[in-house]
Amino acid sequence: MKSYDGVPQFSVFLKFSLEPVDPICIIHHWSVIIHTELNFSSNDGIIAKIFVYFLEMKIIGNVLLYFLKKNNRIQKLVSFAVLEESPLYIPLHPYEDVNEGEESKWVHSGLSATERVQQTKEYCLQSSDSTSNDKTMTTTTTFHRWTIMDYSRAYTSGNITPHMVAERLVSAIMQSSGPEMDLSFFINYESQDILKQATASTLRYERGEPISVLDGVPIAVKDEIDCMPYPTTGGTKWLHKVRPCKEDACCVERLRSCGAILVGKTNMHELGAGTSGINPHYGTSRNPYDPSRISGGSSSGSAGVVCAGLCPVALGVDGGGSVRMPAALCGVVGLKPSFGRIPHSGVIPWNWTVGMVGILAGTVEDSLIAYAAMSGEAEVHQPTMFSNIPCYNQQPKLYLSMLRPSNQLPCIKLAKSNEWFNDCSDDIRICCLRALDSLNKCYGWETVEVTIPEIEVMRLAHYVTIGSECATSLAHHLEKQDKSESGVDVRVALSVYGAFNSRDYLNAQRIRNRQMKIHEKIFDMADVIVTPTVGITAYEIKDDAKETGELDYINGAALVRYSIAGNFLGLPAVTVPVH
Amino acid sequence: MKSYDGVPQFSVFLKFSLEPVDPICIIHHWSVIIHTELNFSSNDGIIAKIFVYFLEMKIIGNVLLYFLKKNNRIQKLVSFAVLEESPLYIPLHPYEDVNEGEESKWVHSGLSATERVQQTKEYCLQSSDSTSNDKTMTTTTTFHRWTIMDYSRAYTSGNITPHMVAERLVSAIMQSSGPEMDLSFFINYESQDILKQATASTLRYERGEPISVLDGVPIAVKDEIDCMPYPTTGGTKWLHKVRPCKEDACCVERLRSCGAILVGKTNMHELGAGTSGINPHYGTSRNPYDPSRISGGSSSGSAGVVCAGLCPVALGVDGGGSVRMPAALCGVVGLKPSFGRIPHSGVIPWNWTVGMVGILAGTVEDSLIAYAAMSGEAEVHQPTMFSNIPCYNQQPKLYLSMLRPSNQLPCIKLAKSNEWFNDCSDDIRICCLRALDSLNKCYGWETVEVTIPEIEVMRLAHYVTIGSECATSLAHHLEKQDKSESGVDVRVALSVYGAFNSRDYLNAQRIRNRQMKIHEKIFDMADVIVTPTVGITAYEIKDDAKETGELDYINGAALVRYSIAGNFLGLPAVTVPVH
Repeated sequence: MKSYDGVPQFSVFLKFSLEPVDPICIIHHWSVIIHTELNFSSNDGIIAKIFVYFLEMKIIGNVLLYFLKKNNRIQKLVSFAVLEESPLYIPLHPYEDVNEGEESKWVHSGLSATERVQQTKEYCLQSSDSTSNDKTMTTTTTFHRWTIMDYSRAYTSGNITPHMVAERLVSAIMQSSGPEMDLSFFINYESQDILKQATASTLRYERGEPISVLDGVPIAVKDEIDCMPYPTTGGTKWLHKVRPCKEDACCVERLRSCGAILVGKTNMHELGAGTSGINPHYGTSRNPYDPSRISGGSSSGSAGVVCAGLCPVALGVDGGGSVRMPAALCGVVGLKPSFGRIPHSGVIPWNWTVGMVGILAGTVEDSLIAYAAMSGEAEVHQPTMFSNIPCYNQQPKLYLSMLRPSNQLPCIKLAKSNEWFNDCSDDIRICCLRALDSLNKCYGWETVEVTIPEIEVMRLAHYVTIGSECATSLAHHLEKQDKSESGVDVRVALSVYGAFNSRDYLNAQRIRNRQMKIHEKIFDMADVIVTPTVGITAYEIKDDAKETGELDYINGAALVRYSIAGNFLGLPAVTVPVH
Repeated sequence: MKSYDGVPQFSVFLKFSLEPVDPICIIHHWSVIIHTELNFSSNDGIIAKIFVYFLEMKIIGNVLLYFLKKNNRIQKLVSFAVLEESPLYIPLHPYEDVNEGEESKWVHSGLSATERVQQTKEYCLQSSDSTSNDKTMTTTTTFHRWTIMDYSRAYTSGNITPHMVAERLVSAIMQSSGPEMDLSFFINYESQDILKQATASTLRYERGEPISVLDGVPIAVKDEIDCMPYPTTGGTKWLHKVRPCKEDACCVERLRSCGAILVGKTNMHELGAGTSGINPHYGTSRNPYDPSRISGGSSSGSAGVVCAGLCPVALGVDGGGSVRMPAALCGVVGLKPSFGRIPHSGVIPWNWTVGMVGILAGTVEDSLIAYAAMSGEAEVHQPTMFSNIPCYNQQPKLYLSMLRPSNQLPCIKLAKSNEWFNDCSDDIRICCLRALDSLNKCYGWETVEVTIPEIEVMRLAHYVTIGSECATSLAHHLEKQDKSESGVDVRVALSVYGAFNSRDYLNAQRIRNRQMKIHEKIFDMADVIVTPTVGITAYEIKDDAKETGELDYINGAALVRYSIAGNFLGLPAVTVPVH
């Protein structure tokens, strides 16, 4: 609660998601639109298979999609929307110098990853030293989770070595993946590679020369991000064959340069095209609080390993809540930074304008340290969509700002759209309202009533955008691909994604422009928008879902409602546990 | 030849189009793709009408379009293209300070329109004073055309007044529009409005207080740009009814602020969706050199009035050669500035990423003076696609740079792609090669042989882009529109435009990124790319084309080949007569 990711354009903005500590296991699915048209009952396997059979036929599929789209809400609210706005294709929030007073600190991206981590660590230490009454928002958990600082202190003391941790970790991963626990957090891990990194780290500590506070700290990586020596499956059975992983993603390389131990590739929803995390190929990542329930997705395994205390930090990718959602379901912190702040190179390019590397961590401080390591401009020179926008590339400005909790803490204004905020189950609402009340009592932060219009339109526009970009990105692969290698849910999604017209896409970008203006006005009135992270509590993993993929669109539509602005408008967003 | 529009990113780049002086009347059509699939013979009216009847049926039309798209070159080269690049949505060329030496002059956009015009005029005068041997490239014409300076000098001398000119002009417009000449240059003009402006200008000269060198100069405006008191038809029978014109477009307002007399709205290809200028609703703008031939389009009337000497300058809009093509066909200068340099507000928003207000003028100097008046940032604050790119909006930098022809004239390098350059009729090729030879002899400018790959792919990607954006922009109007109010050519075009998938559009933007890099490399080697403006000579206006609209896709495909980079990559481009 006492740190935040500064987006100067919006001053101290964060989409500040609050959710209960207890495991509320929830699912949502991208394919929120078709649910109103199709009304599949949850995981109606046979009907779904017949449906996808027809959907994938060339001419009949086209006619079927024509009828599906006809009089659909996308048709009405996006395709034929009456809009004055031009398209806004990329949700940039250019760097600006904003004076946020003595309570904040900038860390410059011109520094090296280790220097950034060092500055961030020092600041986090100062902040925690100066607060004694800050335990009000601290979560209690049945899991034993070490923070990055816990690892660092233990290693520095010499009582514990990275190698000892790695040995225990390998054993824990094997146990969690075994038939008894069947938690399926990982798609790939190599014990020897983990131990080798740990040995090198141990030697550095023995020499008294750890690289940074991250040296020897185990970090897991979603299998959508390149990390040597593993293939990048994207949760599929085939993508790594046509897109071999040749080097670390930029973000992974930065963590490695700080000494972190990369412990393997975490499970995820196939193609990232869903948020249950139910994966018919690699098993379903289960919720550590209750293994009969999902951990959420699409960054399902990353949420699981952090929740279970295997790693203090894991990487996810968030194109429509895919980091924040599983973080919420597993009771950990989920941070999706402003669009573009962490280089995207080496992440499967499933979309170009909504997705971001995000961080799952046990604490806000740990997510900030990981962010400090990874953020800032990429050195790689490959064609990007920013390459003709020099101001975006050339500014070596801040990327991190933190509030020092002190007596001079500024009064943060929290925007709350009542109707939207309350559109969730009773237990979530009560818990989140109580959190707002605590913030007011502890810090004097005030809630401002606002109305955010056209949220449903934005959700549809985001769906059209991420779907169109995904279908485009995969087009030439899918052309040659045996469709039966994918889960039914993914096949339905890809058929729908591929049916969007260029008009749907372009009007979605005009809606993006419109919503950007709407949100700018909200941020004139308040510093932060607060919502719950998810709208309903979760359900158990069903057997036929495990076989075919998740097709529960009914619950999905109720869940995605709080995540979209973070992706579609490129806003930084964080979810933190509250009680 | 001695002036150019500076794009600092490419130093002295111009796509420098050369074409013969004699009127070569040529046609092209946007719908270059379907010609290979449909193979209509030219203006096969009945078949076209039957075809469009089926095309516009909901389900049958969809199936028809499915087969048209199948195995089409767009499918192969765009939809399923294997691309590494991210999409590049907007072809920005941000302002940069580039020192081009003493021979060049910057005019700053922070100045008022009249100040910019004044500086440009002075520079043009200096340049023409210092050249005596510069007549080598001057065109000879059978028409008597006054330059802006001719008007200004005559008015200042007092021998001729703006009112006298306006009276003659009104009479000439009426004569040209009458049944005998039937040149159909104008869709709308109001004698009283013209004379009223002329009277005001006359009084200013009488008081010795003309506003600028443009005071009293007649300028015509393409009916795609808002200009009071006229409706903006876009060449249609219906668009002005659903989109009333409420005020001058920004560019028109700037010309008016300099004292220019706005003389009415010129004819154009319906919806700008073609370049023959054949318009079934408002008559077909004819070529002043040979009224049995087209003047070209889509800015057909603007080319006609400048060619015939009615106005020294007319405005057009260029989304795919629509200014340069008719300029070439009518033997006048056509300038399409860098993307975004003239504000687009008040221009029908048929597309967002390829179209630009352009200038048709008798001389390069006149096009520069008009450009000086209109360019620079808009004061209007409406949501634009640039609004989150501060460097683009905030830089009050130059927009104009001119080469002084002097002994120190730098050696300009002209990039020539042989295969592409030669892909035109013999007479055009011979004439353009002779021009290159003259440039070498007179100025020592050298030709550099280059290869520009994937030009055909770029053309298809541009077609997908402009078509998709046009269909999107018009979607909610067309939904309610009686289709029979449009020409058959436009109806076919709109059906094809509406069938593009979001994948087609997104891959087109990835191809844009790819071509931008390819062109950057060309401009590392040369200052200018030279090509003919059009590939083949033109044909006469056929009677059934006048009734149904132009459907000659065969010639069209041969013609568009030199125009596209200017629009798709946002490069400045000019066409000038050569002999």
